[in-house]
Amino acid sequence: MRYISFDGEASISPDEFFMNEALREAREALKEDEIPIGAIVTCKGQIIGRGHNLTERLNDVSAHAEMQALTAAANYMGGKYLKDCTLYVTMEPCVMCAGASYWFQVGRIVFGAYDTKLGFGRLNQKITHPKTIITGGIKENECAQLVRDFFKSKRQKT
Amino acid sequence: MRYISFDGEASISPDEFFMNEALREAREALKEDEIPIGAIVTCKGQIIGRGHNLTERLNDVSAHAEMQALTAAANYMGGKYLKDCTLYVTMEPCVMCAGASYWFQVGRIVFGAYDTKLGFGRLNQKITHPKTIITGGIKENECAQLVRDFFKSKRQKT
Repeated sequence: MRYISFDGEASISPDEFFMNEALREAREALKEDEIPIGAIVTCKGQIIGRGHNLTERLNDVSAHAEMQALTAAANYMGGKYLKDCTLYVTMEPCVMCAGASYWFQVGRIVFGAYDTKLGFGRLNQKITHPKTIITGGIKENECAQLVRDFFKSKRQKT
Repeated sequence: MRYISFDGEASISPDEFFMNEALREAREALKEDEIPIGAIVTCKGQIIGRGHNLTERLNDVSAHAEMQALTAAANYMGGKYLKDCTLYVTMEPCVMCAGASYWFQVGRIVFGAYDTKLGFGRLNQKITHPKTIITGGIKENECAQLVRDFFKSKRQKT
């Protein structure tokens, strides 16, 4: 879906708009020398949770961008579930994060780059909530490039 | 494995001993009107992390016993991985928690009651770390009964 603004100039879709916000979070991670993955949670067009990868800073391998964004969003909502919410994340969630989205009953997950090795999509059984709608590949190249560049620079340093 | 003490009296195995500790955590959850699931993490026979279900108190559906115990243990270790550690948990971990154990590279998972509906064992692909050894059914009845009684009392109240 691509929106055309009234003056005929090509505009971006809501998914691209919010993925840009997730990318902003990913760049925050990059500044802190973390694997650049970012996430946001929206509800009715409003951002209600943000997060980026904090595994190094928190010395916690489970401190993924999605976990931060989901708990922040649930905290903001004051409730347990995120049924009417969308999780935007720059990289396909891992099994842990997809498993977390089950408990939060996330309405929709939109991710950027595919992760064929560790992404939840490699499983041949659905582990997200039955009602969760999945969209992958939004701003895929930009999201993937950020992570590729990060690991490339790490390899060059060692 | 059942150990016999020197005076011929039947003793409990290390797994049963530590599952009792996880059960102690589960009963802490029960006191707080949480679903009674408890977990501990051991390293070389020492308990280095404890946790129980806190989903109600924290109003966070991802605040499972395993997540508390794993992060507490990693924090205690001051490192990222729990390769030489065992996670004892009264209920078969869900997909999120098993997914978390992958990142922590947990050496061994020992659980009590099986959870055929939401446990990670229902998946036909391995989601734990390739090196993680799994043992299920330790003090199974006691672990399951605690949860069954909890839900029974909840139904009676409503």
